[in-house]
Amino acid sequence: MVAELVVSPLAPKAFPDIPQIDGVELFTAAIAGGYKNRDNLLFARFAEGTTVAGVLTTSKCPSAPVDWCRAHLPKGTARGLVVNAGNANAFVGMVGAETVEKTAEAAADLLGCSASEIFISSTGVIGEPLPHAPLIDALICVNDEVATYEAAAGAIRTTDTFAKGASAHLNMDDVDVSIAGIAKGSGMIAPNMATMLAYLFTDVPISADVLQTLLQSGNAKSFNAITVDSDTSTSDTCLVFATGAAAAKGVAPITSLNDPRCAAFADALDAVLKDLALQIIKDGEGITKLIISHVTGATSDESAQRIARAIADSPLVKTAVAGADANWGRVVMAVGKAGEPADRDKLKIAFGDLVLAENGYRAPHYSEEAASAYMQGDEIEIRVDLGLGEGEAIIYGADLTHGYVSINGDYRS
Amino acid sequence: MVAELVVSPLAPKAFPDIPQIDGVELFTAAIAGGYKNRDNLLFARFAEGTTVAGVLTTSKCPSAPVDWCRAHLPKGTARGLVVNAGNANAFVGMVGAETVEKTAEAAADLLGCSASEIFISSTGVIGEPLPHAPLIDALICVNDEVATYEAAAGAIRTTDTFAKGASAHLNMDDVDVSIAGIAKGSGMIAPNMATMLAYLFTDVPISADVLQTLLQSGNAKSFNAITVDSDTSTSDTCLVFATGAAAAKGVAPITSLNDPRCAAFADALDAVLKDLALQIIKDGEGITKLIISHVTGATSDESAQRIARAIADSPLVKTAVAGADANWGRVVMAVGKAGEPADRDKLKIAFGDLVLAENGYRAPHYSEEAASAYMQGDEIEIRVDLGLGEGEAIIYGADLTHGYVSINGDYRS
Repeated sequence: MVAELVVSPLAPKAFPDIPQIDGVELFTAAIAGGYKNRDNLLFARFAEGTTVAGVLTTSKCPSAPVDWCRAHLPKGTARGLVVNAGNANAFVGMVGAETVEKTAEAAADLLGCSASEIFISSTGVIGEPLPHAPLIDALICVNDEVATYEAAAGAIRTTDTFAKGASAHLNMDDVDVSIAGIAKGSGMIAPNMATMLAYLFTDVPISADVLQTLLQSGNAKSFNAITVDSDTSTSDTCLVFATGAAAAKGVAPITSLNDPRCAAFADALDAVLKDLALQIIKDGEGITKLIISHVTGATSDESAQRIARAIADSPLVKTAVAGADANWGRVVMAVGKAGEPADRDKLKIAFGDLVLAENGYRAPHYSEEAASAYMQGDEIEIRVDLGLGEGEAIIYGADLTHGYVSINGDYRS
Repeated sequence: MVAELVVSPLAPKAFPDIPQIDGVELFTAAIAGGYKNRDNLLFARFAEGTTVAGVLTTSKCPSAPVDWCRAHLPKGTARGLVVNAGNANAFVGMVGAETVEKTAEAAADLLGCSASEIFISSTGVIGEPLPHAPLIDALICVNDEVATYEAAAGAIRTTDTFAKGASAHLNMDDVDVSIAGIAKGSGMIAPNMATMLAYLFTDVPISADVLQTLLQSGNAKSFNAITVDSDTSTSDTCLVFATGAAAAKGVAPITSLNDPRCAAFADALDAVLKDLALQIIKDGEGITKLIISHVTGATSDESAQRIARAIADSPLVKTAVAGADANWGRVVMAVGKAGEPADRDKLKIAFGDLVLAENGYRAPHYSEEAASAYMQGDEIEIRVDLGLGEGEAIIYGADLTHGYVSINGDYRS
């Protein structure tokens, strides 16, 4: 059996309109050897003075490109980004680091900068050596024409069923500034490895340390709040590049978290991160329904997050949602297994606005009919109130369907 | 779609031959209201002086019967066991505790003992009140004829596709003694809740505290080493009853862990526990292949166990096994996500005896053909050596198939 890649039923109608960001030039190319008969290399060039922040996979077995980014992020400056799709350059021994180094050196030569200012990502097959020569050949010969954000988002896809992009615009010091982002998601098909990659670009002048703090905060509420199947890639990467080009138009650099303009910038950044994260989950393998696991009343936010995650990751909850079954008993089970403080007799469980259970018992006005009607929708909010404290968290997940099993259970050969 | 319950392809050929245990009388009955047109009540009567040990679900939302067992286990004596299938008596408020109490009182009246010496389990639907009157009526009217272990194992099934039993026999003080056990497993179908129940019976005279220690040790290597889908029931229960009937034949009571006969008894107990645990996993929903996740070389046994569990619970590993795909890249991913000490460049991964990767690289003699041939089997051993220390663990799991999604994703109504 071979799974056909049909576009996710939860995909947005079209790729959004994203204007170019001053100081960013995007190029795409096809690496020789071919990958799905399309461009599979993204090369981004940044203006001098570009700052960078990033978050990387917590996997204990990271890919060679992740090692590279982790080593060079602390410096906080960037001039280029190279991403290839089709081969993750992961778990290939010393060859992996060598390919990354040679790629960075080639890009640095093109841009006249230090190799440490080139950031690298790879996504695709794991355990297959990634030869550097064809990659560098493609890099040198990238099309002269600057690519759109849609083309860039397309080039980094592996088995995503749609290209993912988002942007936000705000006024800062009377100047219009922007944040644009692209991402690839959790489309996985044997033998590819799940990988989430996201790149954001802004013309706002902002120091790397402030950007890093804001990214980490936004990441917690976006990419770290989604789960397709609880599996963590060796290559997950999110980088934000700030060219500072708006400084020439009169925007003063943001160099401190106490800068009053931080709040609006953070809101815009959070919005782009969340938009991209939700697009990734909506392209989860075999997804037919988005699960919004919303936990309140926990003893702490951390506790709420662990419970929300236990619900969103529970195969029994996920299959119930796939089957449009308002099976709140499985939610009780998931709360119980999370190992966090919970009192059975204070639990309140609602699907959307429909309270199904409270005080350790089925809700008196419970209507199977109303619950079944709600479950027909394509966004299912599972709300759990623990009645113990003020802790709250939201985790976004996907249902577990035959499509997931088909996509991931196919023979590799 | 309605999932048909076909017998698991990994089921044993027949129920094993299990002799009666002195001091144990088993009875079965059908509770009025009907459940699958078969007996769904098990009533076990034990000789005076029977000791009991038990392990119960770690769920923070346990069922009323679990609360009851937890309260009365410390006393260490038992005269009866009542188990019903079809209704879990879980998350039904105060009514749940009332049903348990009335059932225990009725059984105690029949046996002339204290209600605290009656142990209770329920399995089935969650959130539906379990009326005590029909249950007690069935209890009072149980068939006079003593039931076989096969009939008893049949009565506690919900959606198990086969009845589960095992036994072990040993010679103690020149007397033949036995341990018999029955279990129900992880056959789940909406709206039932997954539940693992196991009951063991022995004629060996042994104090409750020694029995408890041996059970906990054996449980760690058996029921706590299996995972179908990482979900934890509100009702998981394993109880061991020791009637001491063999004392009349000259077996001196075991009252200390230092008793030299403990080792042989523990081995026999472990064998029955492990046999039942493997039968449960082999009846996992939709299972087509048993996964044996065997981790060595970890920094500790606990660390090895967390990594082995991350592998056995990974949806990507489980679907790869279902698809007979020797996808060791997903094993690397699962090791990486476990959050335990691991060094990518020291990892060694084998499927059975076939080494697929070592030293952070695909094994030089890797043969896709040999790996694919191995994956056709119905027991897949995934061996990971971390090369860091002496820690070792084995976790048994199930593949993730279309059958799992069908069984758990059906509409409840």
